[in-house]
Amino acid sequence: MMPWSSTLLTDLYELTMAHAYLQHGMEQPAVFEFFVRKLPARRQFLIAAGLEQVIEFLLQLRLTDEEVRWLESTGRFAPALLDYLRRLRFAGDVEAVPEGTIFFPHEPILRITAPLPVAQLVESRVMNLLNFQTMIASKAARSVLVAGGKPLIDFGLRRAHGAEAGLLAARASYLAGFAGTATVLAGMAYGIPLYGTMAHSFVQAHQDEAAAFAHFAESQPDNILLLIDTYDTEEAARKVVRLAPALRARGLSVKGVRLDSGDLGDHARKVRRILDDGGLTNAQILASGNLDEYRLKELVDSGAPIDSFAIGTAMTTSSDAPSLDCAYKLQAYAGRPCRKRSEGKATWPGAKQVYRHYDDAGQPAFDVVTTASDRQTGTRLLESVVKDGRRVAPAPSLDDIRRLVATQLTQLPARLRTLEQAPPYEVRIAPALQELAQALDQNEPALVTGSTQGDRG
Amino acid sequence: MMPWSSTLLTDLYELTMAHAYLQHGMEQPAVFEFFVRKLPARRQFLIAAGLEQVIEFLLQLRLTDEEVRWLESTGRFAPALLDYLRRLRFAGDVEAVPEGTIFFPHEPILRITAPLPVAQLVESRVMNLLNFQTMIASKAARSVLVAGGKPLIDFGLRRAHGAEAGLLAARASYLAGFAGTATVLAGMAYGIPLYGTMAHSFVQAHQDEAAAFAHFAESQPDNILLLIDTYDTEEAARKVVRLAPALRARGLSVKGVRLDSGDLGDHARKVRRILDDGGLTNAQILASGNLDEYRLKELVDSGAPIDSFAIGTAMTTSSDAPSLDCAYKLQAYAGRPCRKRSEGKATWPGAKQVYRHYDDAGQPAFDVVTTASDRQTGTRLLESVVKDGRRVAPAPSLDDIRRLVATQLTQLPARLRTLEQAPPYEVRIAPALQELAQALDQNEPALVTGSTQGDRG
Repeated sequence: MMPWSSTLLTDLYELTMAHAYLQHGMEQPAVFEFFVRKLPARRQFLIAAGLEQVIEFLLQLRLTDEEVRWLESTGRFAPALLDYLRRLRFAGDVEAVPEGTIFFPHEPILRITAPLPVAQLVESRVMNLLNFQTMIASKAARSVLVAGGKPLIDFGLRRAHGAEAGLLAARASYLAGFAGTATVLAGMAYGIPLYGTMAHSFVQAHQDEAAAFAHFAESQPDNILLLIDTYDTEEAARKVVRLAPALRARGLSVKGVRLDSGDLGDHARKVRRILDDGGLTNAQILASGNLDEYRLKELVDSGAPIDSFAIGTAMTTSSDAPSLDCAYKLQAYAGRPCRKRSEGKATWPGAKQVYRHYDDAGQPAFDVVTTASDRQTGTRLLESVVKDGRRVAPAPSLDDIRRLVATQLTQLPARLRTLEQAPPYEVRIAPALQELAQALDQNEPALVTGSTQGDRG
Repeated sequence: MMPWSSTLLTDLYELTMAHAYLQHGMEQPAVFEFFVRKLPARRQFLIAAGLEQVIEFLLQLRLTDEEVRWLESTGRFAPALLDYLRRLRFAGDVEAVPEGTIFFPHEPILRITAPLPVAQLVESRVMNLLNFQTMIASKAARSVLVAGGKPLIDFGLRRAHGAEAGLLAARASYLAGFAGTATVLAGMAYGIPLYGTMAHSFVQAHQDEAAAFAHFAESQPDNILLLIDTYDTEEAARKVVRLAPALRARGLSVKGVRLDSGDLGDHARKVRRILDDGGLTNAQILASGNLDEYRLKELVDSGAPIDSFAIGTAMTTSSDAPSLDCAYKLQAYAGRPCRKRSEGKATWPGAKQVYRHYDDAGQPAFDVVTTASDRQTGTRLLESVVKDGRRVAPAPSLDDIRRLVATQLTQLPARLRTLEQAPPYEVRIAPALQELAQALDQNEPALVTGSTQGDRG
């Protein structure tokens, strides 16, 4: 059985480079930062997520005997590297924004300072973890913003990209404000509230739809949520009404119905009327089926009588933006700041800090990115979370993170709370950082070309 | 440490329904089939992948003591269900197309026959596994088809959706024809060939680019592949040329260079000239950086002197189609075929078989979907793989699967081998299946509405 977070979740070149670093005595501290280069289309902000998993990965960093033996068996890794890997531990520092922090392009959300081979080796998995949960939390928040307070539930496991994606999407959407998930293991792993109804197969397995409803009600007396679109939605709603008195006689009440196909708004109106006319005014309507934040907004804005929504594939795959243009870049080595100047991918050098400034109404007004040593006014976003391989403070609870997100979403300027592109939030590059970049470029003037500045600022 | 493939990778409703089934003695055999409703835009075919992981999941189906205790601790599951789950094993049958089989909408690629609560419970993970790898293999094959035989390498771990997605994307792209992956754990887990070069950080960590190249060459004498776009691509190529004689004197030869930014075709031409003029005619050029099948085709068609390509995010997230419109549906229970008739989601009832017909040139001409008992001519696609909870035959090797895919891609009609939408491959619904559907609809005439036929055929 492989562990969830093997240290060999890394690219071959991380090992190759580690070997070269060791051979040449390059084990001085390196500073790597994770940041996003630009927002996906239609996104106005991102929510930092996955930091807790990164810290767990770093603190558990070690190869199993089986892994080292396998590396050895390939014949492509030198004994010195294998010895190093046998002893590999993370004893470095991590600075990061608190998980759940809203952030913008060019702002580092995580900084790792460790001996170069170690800080390098963790690149692939650090990116893998931060890219995914940040992307999902940011996508899920869009639904939360347009749901008007109606509960949203993650139904996405079946089309999530593998097991871990299903679990972490449940976590990321919950911290962004979803009410819970259908994924049982996410309930066990993270304590996320679980929700569920029934599948069409349940109805089909019975010869008769009403019998299926009755059976379900007997088995789930506290959660009588009936799926009514297997054959004919309104007809099924009438069956629910006809069934209700018999249930009531036994002390059971119908909690609600689920719609999963067709015009959800239209069905909801018809079903609401049938339920109300039948005296089931307390029965709720849950809608699911190919929902995303746009359909959700339409349904909410139209006043459709839907009480809660389940969102699956679109959220759990971030279907319109299934990756972030993110990077984990070397910003300093052995005390010397450095920068990459590849075309379209140039980076700001050195260890950095981000300061957030608020207006009089308590809304974020602009951020300033500067060098870590440059003291500015405003709220510092990056703080120390791991020092010399140990946590500085206990991990926040998932509900703490969820509250932090909720608070920030409330404070966000109105234009950033919409689904469509708005004038971007201002991120200023401080003079201290600009001067550092210039100084580095001037020290290596032969390397600078006019085409390398495309991605700045 | 959680296992990779926990039985609790399931939706809450699977447990809820299992309880109701048990309470009402509904443990007769159920037949579920996995199929795709329609192709994503621009796809002409799909490659069945992930079957091996489904079989492993089924054969290892069992809850750990910790999992049962946790379920119990929630207070929401009845003792009878917990007892059942403690004893849960898969002793059913699986019929499936061989992994790597090309298939089309409405064709089941996997059928599970097992007691209803078991066949139901596995739904979420079966879909999770088949959706992802099928999607990735089908996406990767598009790059293989336009690469003109040039090796393709998976560089996607960092933006894959979690750990398992990274691993399974390496597997799915390899079986589709990729040459290998950068993901080390995929080499260990599946024996996939590993490839790698160096990162920009390696160059940046050195004060001098040429020194970085020299260090790397010393450490990797058999794999001197140098990344040359950290600062100025052509200038770096000239450094490689200047370095070569010193390396040659020590018996080392430059294997190649990697380009990762800018206009890859233009850089490749300039770099090729610099390398050739410098006598490095054997040094290869590897290109990476935001590649997908379209950019790949442009580069190949333009005759750019690139020897191999690394493809990351676009392949590993199936960026233009990050999910399949797939389903795992109950087709029969206790010997009685059934069908779902939800709007836009109606299914063909009963256990089914698919027959493939070839033309005189050996190309697939059309498929016929029919009932499992209806004998037709043509090649039967579904075969028995698990009987009474045991494998019928040893699992095929990944290389066997890869060869099967390669053969089928060669046989595919030319119009289906292109990147753009073409007239679809013909999938016929046999009269026997149409009659079964009609008979079912006629037996329950009150349930049939005109709007429920949208998704057929």
